[in-house]
Amino acid sequence: MKVQSRKPFEAIVGTENIKYSQAQLLAYSYDATANFQAKPDLVLSPRNSEEISEIVKICAKEQIPLVSRGSGTNLAAGTVPSQGGIILLFNKMNRILELDENNLTITVQPGVITQDINAYVEQKGLFYPPDPSSMKISTIGGNVSENSGGLRGLKYGVTKDYVRALTFVLPDGEIMKVGGKLAKDVAGYDLLSLLVGSEGTLGIITEITLKLIPLPASKMTGVAYFNSLEDAAKTVSAIISQKIIPATLEFMDKGTINAVEDFMSMGLPREAEAMLLMEQDGDPEQVERDIQQMIAIAKMEGATSTALASSIEEAELLKAGRRAALSALARKRPTTILEDATVPRSEIAKMVRAIQEIAEKYKVQINTFGHAGDGNLHPTCLTDVRDAEEMHRVEQAFEEIFLAAIELGGTITGEHGVGEMKAPYLEWKIGKSGIELMKHIKQSIDPGNIMNPGKVFAKETKMRLVIRGGH
Amino acid sequence: MKVQSRKPFEAIVGTENIKYSQAQLLAYSYDATANFQAKPDLVLSPRNSEEISEIVKICAKEQIPLVSRGSGTNLAAGTVPSQGGIILLFNKMNRILELDENNLTITVQPGVITQDINAYVEQKGLFYPPDPSSMKISTIGGNVSENSGGLRGLKYGVTKDYVRALTFVLPDGEIMKVGGKLAKDVAGYDLLSLLVGSEGTLGIITEITLKLIPLPASKMTGVAYFNSLEDAAKTVSAIISQKIIPATLEFMDKGTINAVEDFMSMGLPREAEAMLLMEQDGDPEQVERDIQQMIAIAKMEGATSTALASSIEEAELLKAGRRAALSALARKRPTTILEDATVPRSEIAKMVRAIQEIAEKYKVQINTFGHAGDGNLHPTCLTDVRDAEEMHRVEQAFEEIFLAAIELGGTITGEHGVGEMKAPYLEWKIGKSGIELMKHIKQSIDPGNIMNPGKVFAKETKMRLVIRGGH
Repeated sequence: MKVQSRKPFEAIVGTENIKYSQAQLLAYSYDATANFQAKPDLVLSPRNSEEISEIVKICAKEQIPLVSRGSGTNLAAGTVPSQGGIILLFNKMNRILELDENNLTITVQPGVITQDINAYVEQKGLFYPPDPSSMKISTIGGNVSENSGGLRGLKYGVTKDYVRALTFVLPDGEIMKVGGKLAKDVAGYDLLSLLVGSEGTLGIITEITLKLIPLPASKMTGVAYFNSLEDAAKTVSAIISQKIIPATLEFMDKGTINAVEDFMSMGLPREAEAMLLMEQDGDPEQVERDIQQMIAIAKMEGATSTALASSIEEAELLKAGRRAALSALARKRPTTILEDATVPRSEIAKMVRAIQEIAEKYKVQINTFGHAGDGNLHPTCLTDVRDAEEMHRVEQAFEEIFLAAIELGGTITGEHGVGEMKAPYLEWKIGKSGIELMKHIKQSIDPGNIMNPGKVFAKETKMRLVIRGGH
Repeated sequence: MKVQSRKPFEAIVGTENIKYSQAQLLAYSYDATANFQAKPDLVLSPRNSEEISEIVKICAKEQIPLVSRGSGTNLAAGTVPSQGGIILLFNKMNRILELDENNLTITVQPGVITQDINAYVEQKGLFYPPDPSSMKISTIGGNVSENSGGLRGLKYGVTKDYVRALTFVLPDGEIMKVGGKLAKDVAGYDLLSLLVGSEGTLGIITEITLKLIPLPASKMTGVAYFNSLEDAAKTVSAIISQKIIPATLEFMDKGTINAVEDFMSMGLPREAEAMLLMEQDGDPEQVERDIQQMIAIAKMEGATSTALASSIEEAELLKAGRRAALSALARKRPTTILEDATVPRSEIAKMVRAIQEIAEKYKVQINTFGHAGDGNLHPTCLTDVRDAEEMHRVEQAFEEIFLAAIELGGTITGEHGVGEMKAPYLEWKIGKSGIELMKHIKQSIDPGNIMNPGKVFAKETKMRLVIRGGH
């Protein structure tokens, strides 16, 4: 249903927290995903759980879709209001509520920028490890809704590993709290984990308590360049089988290296086929030992050159280069499509090779970078949405990439979420019965389907047109 | 419904894998929980997922309850077949299937004893951290179904933090697989976390893939004794606020210390009011530094004596003493009731004091030990089920203990599960809407209610008769 009157909503949030001009609605009609757009009827900035509860109650009665939106960095069209309705913003719910140094938790509102949490707790010698590449602009509410990953996933896990308690508004408007400042809690089903990563389809998160850990005493950063993808992949495997779990182990292919070099002029070797960026954190002795051993392993596996960052500035520059990969690539052509096919760590070389072959087959430009340590790759296609014929080939290529990932024991999305874009492919990963089970859960919690409708579940599963094998 | 004929089940599992004599049924009529008993109709030992699927299909048609049982160490009557039906044993599904050293995973059948997994991977320099006190006899299938904790929960988390993939049989007999050897996977709702800790009420787990980490290079164990509970609790808080996260930080009160000393004659000081057992693992330099610092903190907070284990044997003896706490207490009287009220770490002193006051109020004998580092306490009542009047007081005391835990921001169960015993109290923790939400999920997945019926959800929530406050 469409919003019939903005008046009741204006009464709840106040005139200063409602947007409805065409220009404003257009501004919230898209997120960071290419080629998806739909205008909402209204954009609201509620100030607390109670206001959200009031809004939800009206929406439940009038069957108005509700889409929660942080900073709109979603890469799977998860925050596009594809069926209209109301966009909820969290710019008025962006406070850090409590740092509990006894229980090592921080409680925040969903609108806090993730990096602000990291910076805030680091001042106190504490550490919130999840670090999605978008952390400078993305909100913690978005991170929780998407179960965001990041560069430190291998060693420290992902967002869900740090969520201890949530307050959320159910689709009937009830305000509920799950979890607590508890390391152990098995009182019933794990609703906390169900909500994390549910992409706004089960309720609206209004308060978040996160687990913190002590800040590692030191860190060191190294880099290795390779003549072949296989050597880089073998290095990753060898590091892990030497029982080293680095804080980050990032990969960039030749195209990405060159794009970053074009963008930042850091002095990266343009002829290298692959680059590994390695970071370890922890106690100084262990960090030094691990990083030296990783460099030695890289050399043994055929690295053409290696280097240790000699200062914090140098280390930050290297990491900034990796974090800029997407922006650097995005400058090359009008449209950038960033994917996150993920495979078991042992299959990285095969997956990168498969991506290259698929790109050649469909004559599209795909560069790959990503989190080598946890098998979470970001094949990134540079294209132009205005060219329908090319876009068709891009779509085919990505379908084949998803299949390749699944065939290698992987998944269609490691950290970006399903949203609207990947919904037609979800069944490829979880099967018909997986879809059924998830739909049962969705229907039982949100029978009116007002919470981010059209996301996660597709009207139709994509036919598997492409036949694969041989990778 | 009752089982009408054992023939179809015998045809599935074979005559050697079915039990139905009265003596056999009696043997599976109870678990480690006092005062709960009910006989099953049949006990089956299926050999694979397909056999379980066949069994489930018959049970779905004939509405026969199915109760999965590992070693029956459950402490909340979770494996008592309270509505009859079939007990599924996993003694024929007890193989380690694969150790994947590239992806640091192990894949096992549910019937493997947890300690066998720990021992097996340690030979390879790898580590499966969850260590429930029952690990010598409990199965990994039981651990996963209960989301078991253990002594290392504070630093390393609990079972759910290590489950990467599950194969399970749905209530309609379908065999489904969720997850993968993936550090990151956000393809749809987190079914994996929903199944872990669901106490056999959503499906039957038939294969488990666990994440492993490198085995820490060294460990050290220390102990501190205190004249007061407060000093021990302050030590716990001070250790954490010094940014040390120990591998274990265990607590025993005076009664437990004395029971262990009666049992093992280890030379524990009988006059001490509290004991803290501390262990750190990791790289040698860091372990040495942390353990020395913890001992120093204990002294500063008023420890009457402290000691460092000077050998592995001495450390093992200290830990054996703590692990024997339950057995040592259980010798004292005919019936032992072990609870696991859990509070935020900062509230431990208040909680232990509340337990003591409640025990005095109801004139029952309750000793407390547990995982101080994660606030997971085990108040243990020594009683006699044959004394109805005393048992009534015990029940009232535990009700008041649950309330005290909830009032302190805690939970009714940290690691034992809800089962049948705590089902009447679940609403106290999660509220009416929490119960409704979980029931919706249960009904949507198991509409016939054949999977461990009568567990987690109670026919009736216990009235809150006791009025608390002041703790």
